[in-house]
Amino acid sequence: MLQVWPLEGIPEVRPGDDLTALIADAACPALADGDILVVTSKIVSKAEGRILHADDRDAAIDAETVRVVASRTSPSGHVTRIVESRLGIIAAAAGVDASNTPHGTVLLLPEDPDASARALAAGLRERLGVRVGVIVSDTMGRAWREGQTDAAIGAGGVRVFEDLRGQTDAEGRPLVVTMPCVADELASAADLVKRKAARLPIAVVRGRAELVGDLDLPGARSIIRPAERDLFHTGSAESYAEGFAAGAASVSARP
Amino acid sequence: MLQVWPLEGIPEVRPGDDLTALIADAACPALADGDILVVTSKIVSKAEGRILHADDRDAAIDAETVRVVASRTSPSGHVTRIVESRLGIIAAAAGVDASNTPHGTVLLLPEDPDASARALAAGLRERLGVRVGVIVSDTMGRAWREGQTDAAIGAGGVRVFEDLRGQTDAEGRPLVVTMPCVADELASAADLVKRKAARLPIAVVRGRAELVGDLDLPGARSIIRPAERDLFHTGSAESYAEGFAAGAASVSARP
Repeated sequence: MLQVWPLEGIPEVRPGDDLTALIADAACPALADGDILVVTSKIVSKAEGRILHADDRDAAIDAETVRVVASRTSPSGHVTRIVESRLGIIAAAAGVDASNTPHGTVLLLPEDPDASARALAAGLRERLGVRVGVIVSDTMGRAWREGQTDAAIGAGGVRVFEDLRGQTDAEGRPLVVTMPCVADELASAADLVKRKAARLPIAVVRGRAELVGDLDLPGARSIIRPAERDLFHTGSAESYAEGFAAGAASVSARP
Repeated sequence: MLQVWPLEGIPEVRPGDDLTALIADAACPALADGDILVVTSKIVSKAEGRILHADDRDAAIDAETVRVVASRTSPSGHVTRIVESRLGIIAAAAGVDASNTPHGTVLLLPEDPDASARALAAGLRERLGVRVGVIVSDTMGRAWREGQTDAAIGAGGVRVFEDLRGQTDAEGRPLVVTMPCVADELASAADLVKRKAARLPIAVVRGRAELVGDLDLPGARSIIRPAERDLFHTGSAESYAEGFAAGAASVSARP
C-alpha cells in the first residue's frame, strides 16, 4: 500500500531560509525510514534566492534558455515556446514561473536541483535520524498529450529508475517495459495531494522504501535523454524549415 | 491523504471473461464511493480477445499503425519505431505487447479503452453499489525523457483534467499551470504499487473522490493533442528529410 500526504505547516519560504530545518520542524515525528519527500522546485528556488526582481518573464526565459526547440503562435497571438533550459530539461518557458511568487518577481529554476535534493536528503537524515529520499519536482507539459503532470527535476538518495532489464513475466517471457521512471511517477503521485492554489509544496510518499538508497545514487539529470538519441530534439516545423533551406541550398550549389 | 493499493486475487484473464465480475469479486467489500480503479490495459485486451495468435509482433504493430512518427536504428541494429496508433496515441510499437501473454501470441490495445473504462465503471457501480471511477492505463515512453511511466488511455466516470483556468494562487496571481492531467497522474501513482513481473494489474486510488463523476465525462481520448497543434507531430529527422526534399524540389522547379 502506498500512502501519500501533504506536509502541513510549511510557511512562506524566503531567500536564505534553511529548507531542511523548515521541513524537519513540519514533518517530525511523522517520517520513517524509506519515506520519500517530494518537494516542489518553487520553494527550493525561493530558499536559494533564485528570484528575479523584474516583471519580465520573457527576459528570464531567455536567460535560462540554451536552445529553442519549437515555437508556435496561436491564432490569438499567444506564443508558446518550448525550450531546452540550462538543466537540459525541455519544457515550455524554461521553467520560469510567475505564479506563487510575490508581484514584481519571477522565479527561476534551482541552480542544481540534484544537488539541492541530495543536500535536503542528507540534512533530514542527519537531523531526524531517518533514512529518507528526496525528489525535487516541477510541473511540465509534454509532447502529444494535453495538460501538465509533475515530474522529477532533482533526486537525492532515491532511485530514479527501476531496472527490470533481463527480468521475465509470470510466463517466463522477457519484460518489454524495462525502465519504469519511478522518480516521475513519485512526483505525479505527490501532485495528487498538493493543491496548486494552496500552500502545500511538499508531500511524503510512503510504501516504496526499497527505492531509498545511498546519497550518491544517480540524480534526475539521468532521466534526460541525450540529444543524439532524441528523435524529437527539434520541433517538426523547425526541422522541416532547416531541411528546406538545406535542400534548396544543395540544388543551388550544383554546377 | 492518498492511499493506493493493488487488488489481490485477480486470476489470469482469458478472452470472454467478465472483467466487471472478476474485479467485483476481488474488490468487495473494500471499495468505497470516490475510489478510482486503475486497470492495466493488458487485461482489458485479454478479456476482449484482442489477442493475435502469431509470433509476429511487427505485423501486429503495422496493423495498429496509422502513421510512422519517427524511427531510429541503433548502432546494434535495433529499430525503434514511434508510431501513431489507431487510438491516436503516439508511442513506441503502437502499444502491441509480447509480454504477459502466452507464447505464440501478442496483445493488441483494446478496441476502445474509453468505452471499456465506462463499461467497467457502470458495471461496478451497479454490482457493488459504490460510485467508482475507472482509468485504463498503459505504459509508455515519452519524448526527451528516458524510461517509461504509466498513463491513461481510457477513463470512465472520472475527470481526466483538473481545470484550474482562471484560478489564482495564495497571492492573487493567476496560476500558470492550469490543466493538471490527473488521469495520467493517477495511472502513474497506481503503477507504483503494481509489479510488472507479478500479476497485479489493478490498483485502487482513494483520496481524490471529487474527481469521480458521471459516466458521460470526457474520456482519455481528450488527452491526445490534435496533430495541428502538436509541435512534435513528426520526428526531427523525418521532418528535416521532408523539408529537404521540398526545398530541393522548389529550386529545381524554378524556370
